[in-house]
Parts: sequence; structure tokens; C-alpha cells
Amino acid sequence: MTPDEFRVHGHALIDWIAEYLEGVARHSVASTVQPGDIRAALPEHPPTQAESFADVLADLDRVVLAGITHWQHPSFMAYFPANISYPSILGEVAAAGLGVQGMSWVTSPACTEVETLMLDWMQELLGLPPSLRSTSTHGGGVIQGSASEATLSSILAARWRATGGQVNTDGDTTHLVAYATSQAHSSIEKGLRIAGIGAQRLRVVPHDEAFAMVPGELERMIAADRAAGLVPFWVCATRGTTSSLAFDPLPQIGSITRREGLWLHVDAAMSGIAALAPEHRWVNEGVELADSYTTNPHKWMGVNFDCNLFWVADRAALLGALSILPEYLRSAAAESGAAIDYRDWQVPLGRRFRALKLWFTIRAGGVAEAVAMIRRHVALTAELAEWVAADPRFEIVAPHPLNLLCVRLREGEPDANAATDTLISQANASGEVLLTRTVLDGKVACRISVGGRTTAAGDVRAAWELLQRLAAG
Amino acid sequence: MTPDEFRVHGHALIDWIAEYLEGVARHSVASTVQPGDIRAALPEHPPTQAESFADVLADLDRVVLAGITHWQHPSFMAYFPANISYPSILGEVAAAGLGVQGMSWVTSPACTEVETLMLDWMQELLGLPPSLRSTSTHGGGVIQGSASEATLSSILAARWRATGGQVNTDGDTTHLVAYATSQAHSSIEKGLRIAGIGAQRLRVVPHDEAFAMVPGELERMIAADRAAGLVPFWVCATRGTTSSLAFDPLPQIGSITRREGLWLHVDAAMSGIAALAPEHRWVNEGVELADSYTTNPHKWMGVNFDCNLFWVADRAALLGALSILPEYLRSAAAESGAAIDYRDWQVPLGRRFRALKLWFTIRAGGVAEAVAMIRRHVALTAELAEWVAADPRFEIVAPHPLNLLCVRLREGEPDANAATDTLISQANASGEVLLTRTVLDGKVACRISVGGRTTAAGDVRAAWELLQRLAAG
Repeated sequence: MTPDEFRVHGHALIDWIAEYLEGVARHSVASTVQPGDIRAALPEHPPTQAESFADVLADLDRVVLAGITHWQHPSFMAYFPANISYPSILGEVAAAGLGVQGMSWVTSPACTEVETLMLDWMQELLGLPPSLRSTSTHGGGVIQGSASEATLSSILAARWRATGGQVNTDGDTTHLVAYATSQAHSSIEKGLRIAGIGAQRLRVVPHDEAFAMVPGELERMIAADRAAGLVPFWVCATRGTTSSLAFDPLPQIGSITRREGLWLHVDAAMSGIAALAPEHRWVNEGVELADSYTTNPHKWMGVNFDCNLFWVADRAALLGALSILPEYLRSAAAESGAAIDYRDWQVPLGRRFRALKLWFTIRAGGVAEAVAMIRRHVALTAELAEWVAADPRFEIVAPHPLNLLCVRLREGEPDANAATDTLISQANASGEVLLTRTVLDGKVACRISVGGRTTAAGDVRAAWELLQRLAAG
Repeated sequence: MTPDEFRVHGHALIDWIAEYLEGVARHSVASTVQPGDIRAALPEHPPTQAESFADVLADLDRVVLAGITHWQHPSFMAYFPANISYPSILGEVAAAGLGVQGMSWVTSPACTEVETLMLDWMQELLGLPPSLRSTSTHGGGVIQGSASEATLSSILAARWRATGGQVNTDGDTTHLVAYATSQAHSSIEKGLRIAGIGAQRLRVVPHDEAFAMVPGELERMIAADRAAGLVPFWVCATRGTTSSLAFDPLPQIGSITRREGLWLHVDAAMSGIAALAPEHRWVNEGVELADSYTTNPHKWMGVNFDCNLFWVADRAALLGALSILPEYLRSAAAESGAAIDYRDWQVPLGRRFRALKLWFTIRAGGVAEAVAMIRRHVALTAELAEWVAADPRFEIVAPHPLNLLCVRLREGEPDANAATDTLISQANASGEVLLTRTVLDGKVACRISVGGRTTAAGDVRAAWELLQRLAAG
């Protein structure tokens, strides 16, 4: 492909994207294909000769779109928000065109320095403690691919600190104990498992009726483990759980972890971005007690996945856990301490120029636009909750301070579980909305996650009316 | 930003990229900024109002380009190839525009099925064993972000198999022993460390004068560890080391790991793609004995980072190590076994639609173009080696079967190390080329990695003439 052909095809593809996003509401929200359908529509063997780009673009329409579950659809209310924006897409385009590797400062200083600046901008925009800024004495932040990776990095830093670095040599993790509620994200158990903290060393701290951690229980479990000769080392407090958007009480948990010397990781992947709006800054209340904190612009800020923000109060522990320096990666800039090598802040070596999409979004999209979107989602969810509360067939099963509502049919146990399951399946089969299912203390619930780029009052109203119609049978 | 504004700005950005890549040779290869320069050129605080995209694009030119080390420059001969191509950039653009999350089949079936097909296409194009195909009884492949992550996944699968899954419960890794040479990539030690295999359980297997593993030494070390009551579990054989492109002898190593029941991981990150050219299929000789294999289209195939291919011969071990199934991620398609949920094949949960860039590259770029590029790089390296061999001031310090040449100044020890260091620094300071330094058994060497998208005979010639001029003092 020549540069001029790239210009022509690139323009066509940009237009294709604009048209796709403008018309995304015309599609069934979820793909309706069966396993194997997409592959069967494509050649089993690779082409022996180059094809025209027009043919490739045609296959995006003909084959790929049928297999897309449209995360940017206004009626996508499943899983979690993953809204994108036009400026963010352009940031991805620019990063792809530059084609640089940001593993070290020296391999493209702008990739590192724009990233560091973005973390400091976000610290300011979210009202996070200044002690997390890159310009602080001990703290700093990094863009990682996902909250899963941030959580794993947090565990590794805590593991390093709790063993005085010894784990890097002997790999002995058998005495370490971690704490989280049953509502914590699956990446907590997965990250611990990867780091050699098996399921029998993950304590499930009881939660209250709002699905939030009970600090007294945490305290009791830590004491019991210490009495048994084990080494409590890491607590995950979630600010906005995936299942129901529960908020573990940070100030109380933080006072325990400070006193006991445990690493406190705050997983605010789904809701931390709400703090862009000053009235929602409570989501990060108590974060000054955290040793690490993570949130995702790729969920609720119009920034394309992958763009996770991960801050640590003590970068030395993170570097102790993750630094390895072979000869072919040495550089004077980094060894002098003047530059950051972000490869030592993450699991993989390589890194894309992900800061561009955040930079483009903040500058060309504007923070005001993100705040307006967050406020719209929260208001729509509150309105939806009023409608649900007014319908005696339904019940709301968890607090709903932001943009997630968990509802279920009220009919008597045990049928309510089956009925709610049926309701979700029927709603999703309509193609008019996409919802996900969860189970909260044994109760099946329908999660309505209001977070689409263009989700408006009419979309939420339509989803609710669909549920009402289906409930009527 | 409205859709129409996106069209206008998107077209402008596509043109900017074409112009950048057409003119990339005009830049100094390495950025010449000092730590802090880029940040100092940008506002310390985020903007309170949205800015025009024209201003953002202007800052790409004014600020960012000065801080770019140009990996796509024809005289970039540092680190490893990371060449991109126009079709691949368009694949990234399409993925950004669709904005889907491919963590599970059901969250966008096309994201999973195009990916699976691409792995099978690549198995065929590289001549890898059919037992690695997704359609095989036990094997399969996945796109991961980097070889670091693939290696970590391999270690976790091996750890699971060696402990009969017990590690997921007790986290006890203290008896496990891993094996690699000193020439293995830093991600090996890092991955092992993360998985709880400390440095004292990583055996450094001696290498021969070609920097390749000595199988007899591996065999001896395994026996000694067994005699000491330890559990040998994982061997990394590198096919193309980062330092010098050494090739560990797979058939011999594989016969040992098969007999001993150890997991054999083959790290062909840098050179495995050479097998696209039939005459270079030897790079994967013996891979039928591997338990896992990884190579990077984002290095030598014109596909943008991140696009790592990772295959396992026994997917059950990988799934055993990495599967976790919370209620909110359940789906009928996956539980029936009809669909693949790639989140269980990797460390993080979330995933971009990375298969598009590989698909676009194979179709619109064409495999023939990638093969021609590989052949050109190999031929240029061979020619360069002849020039170096003819100059008595220089010596070649390692075999050079493909596209990396390690050279140094011949003057008597210990000055040759310092002189070679000076040579590399001066060459890089010129801005005309970028080379990296390594140390091979105590000898400082200059790595000349010939792998740029547009690197041609004149570029290699110019680099060599620069080195000759500098050596002349």
C-alpha cells in the first residue's frame, strides 16, 4: 500500500467509523450469531496474494459487523461502560501512525513524559492526594492496560514490601495472606493466584447488606491470621464493585491497614472517574490512606480501551518488585534518576503510546463533556430507580449511588431467581437492549449499567418499558 | 466533536501520518531532548475548556515529534525491529472505531473468531505443527500484548501442570525450578519472579561459543535438582536471543524435556516470523517438541505493537492456570464448550480487537510483501557482515544467520570495550543511525539490527561508513 493509497483508504475508513457510530443504534445490541458463524464466513486459509483494501472494508460490513456486540450502542447496558469518543479514536490513530515503543524514556521521551503529565493532570482532575503525583517524593502513576494488570502490580509491590524484597530471591509466598470481600472483582483472585497467593490465603471478608466490607471483620481476621503465624500483607478495598457498585468504607479500612502495616489497594476501576464531577468526589473518600489506587478512563471517560491509571504512594516497592535491567536496556538518562522507565512499573516490557488518547480526549473533547456525560448517566439511573420503585412487581436489590441499578422480580422465592433469569434472557433476545446477570447473596439480579456514549433518557425509558412488558408476560 | 468534525480531523490526521512516515528519514533517529524537556513544553495543568483539534495536531508537530525516537526511521537499527505498515495502521483505526471488548466470545463473537482464524492462518504460514491449531484436539493460540505476557502465561500453565493444579490453592512454588541461559530475555526472569519462582530457583544453563544452550548441561542440572529434592518444571529455549540472535538447539532440548516431563517454552519473539520465508523455516526446527511457542508479528511482519502470538500444545493447563468465572461473566456459549473465552488465555480480563491489524496486514499488505521485507533484511545483514569482515579494525562477535550483526572494535583488551562504547555513543549522537549496546561474555558489542520498514541498502551502507569514519577517529 503506497502512502497515497493509505490516504484514500484511511479517509474511507474514517468515514466508515463516523457512519458506524452515527448509525450504531440501528443494530441489534448483541450479536445474534452462533459459535463458528463468523469463521465460517471467512476463508479457512490465508490469501496467497494481496487483496484490495476495498474488499477488506467490505468484509468489515459483510462479516465482522454481524459478529459485533455493540458496546457503543446507546442501549448497551451490560457489563460496564466502555464508552469511547471521537478525540480518543484520533489519539489511537496518532499512536498507530507514530509506531513507537515506550518501554523506556530513551526509546521515545515524549511517550513517557506525556504519560507522566497525564497522570498528574488526572490526579488534579480527580482530586486525588498530591502525594500520588510524579513530582512528589515517593509517589507516582502509570498507564497500564487494564485494572487486572494494575491489581497484579499492586500485589507484587506489596509482596515485595512484606518480604523485604526476599520474595525476588526465594519466591516464598506461602505465609502471605490477602483480604477482600466476595464482591471484589475476579481479577483480585486471579492476580493473587498468579503471584503465588493461593485461594486458601485469600480471606473473604464478610460484607454488610449494602455489599460493602465490614471493617471489624477485617480486623478480626487479620488478628486471627497473625495468631496463626501467617503474614497479612494486602487488602483490596473496592470503590464501586462490579456486581452492584458497592463501596467498601475506605477511612475505616485504611485506619486498620495503616495500623497493621498492610498494603491497601483501592480498586476504583469502574467508578473512580466519577470524581471528575466535584459532587461525586466522595467515591475517593479516604484514598489518602491507600498504598495504591486504580481507575479506568477506558470505562467512563470516553477513552478507548486500553487506558488504566495506576498510582502508588511508594514507587520504590513497585520498582523493587518489577525492575530487571539487562545490558541491552541500560540508559544514562534512567540510571541518573532523571527519567522514568515505565517498563519497571508494569508486567510487560513493551508499551504503546497510550497517553495520546487521554491527552486528545482531555484537550479536544474537554473535561466538561466527560463531566456532563457522567452527570447524565447518574441522573438517568436515579430516574430509572424511581420508575422501578413504583412498580410492585420489581425490587431494587442494592444501593445505587451512581450509574448501576440491580433489579429483580419480586415474586416469591425460589421462583424469583428463575423468573429474573428468564426476564434477562428475553430482554437480551429482543436485540433492543443488553443487560447482564449477577447473583447477590443468592439472589439473581439484572444489572442495568447506564454508561453509553450517547445513552439518553429515551434509551433508558425504552429498556424499562421492555422489562415491564416482559414482566407482564 | 461532532461526526462531521471527526471526518475532517480524521482525514487531516491520516494525511499527517502519511506525511510523517514518508518524511521520517529527515529526522534525527533518536530524540535529542533532555529529561523534562517535553513536559516543560506543555501546560502543567489541564485545560479548563475544550481546545480545537487543530491545536492538538499542531502540538504533535511542535512538541511530540521532538520527543520521538523514530522506530520507523530507515536507520533505526537499535533494540529490535518494530516495523509497522499502512494496512496494519488501518486495522488499529478500525479497532478503535468499533470500540468493543473481546474478553469473552459473547462480548463480540467476531473479535474472538477472527483472532482464532488468524492464529490458524499464522500456524499455516509459519509451518508450525498442526497440533497447535485451534481445531486440534488439545492445542490452540491467542493474541497477547507482548512476549513478556506470553512467557508469563507459559510459566503459569507449567506451574499448574507441575503441581497438579495445587498451586491455585496453596500457592506453594518453593520447590519449582526453571532453566534458561544467561542470553534469555529479561522477561524470563521477570515472569518467573512474578509467578513466585525466585532468582535462586532459576538455573542459568551454560551456553556455547555461539551463545546457544548446551543441552548436556541442562540435563546435568535437572538431575542435580531432582537429587536435591526439587521439582524441575520449565525450560525456556530461545530461538533468536535479544543480545546476539543465538538459537538454542531445540531438538536436543526437547528430547530432554519430553523425557523428563518438563514444560518446554520456545521464545521466538524476535525471529520466529522469519519462517514466513520457506528457506528460514529452520528457525522453528524442533518446535513440535514444545509445550508453548511465541513469536511477534509486531516485530518483523509490519504489524503494529501490540500483536504477540502465543500457542500452547495443551490448552487445558493454560485454562487451569488462568480461568476464573464470576457470575457476571458466565455465558451459555462458553459453558457449552462451543466458544472460546480468551480472557482465560491471558493475564488481564479486557482485550482490544487486535486481530484486525493482523488480518488487514495479511490481506491488504500481503504475505509476499512481508516475505520480501524479511529477505531484504537478511540479505542486507549478510552484505554488511562481509564489509565488516573485510575491515581489520572490527570483529564480528556472534553468528549472524538473520538480521542482527554484533560487532566490536578489535583493539587489544581491555580498551576494546571502552572503544566500542565510545563508538556506539558517537554513532548515536550523530542522529544518523541508532544502535544499541550489549555485552557478550564480557565483551561490549554494538548490535546492528536491520529491520526497518523501509531500510534499504543505502541506509545500511551509510551506517557502516559512519562506523568506519568514527573508528578512524
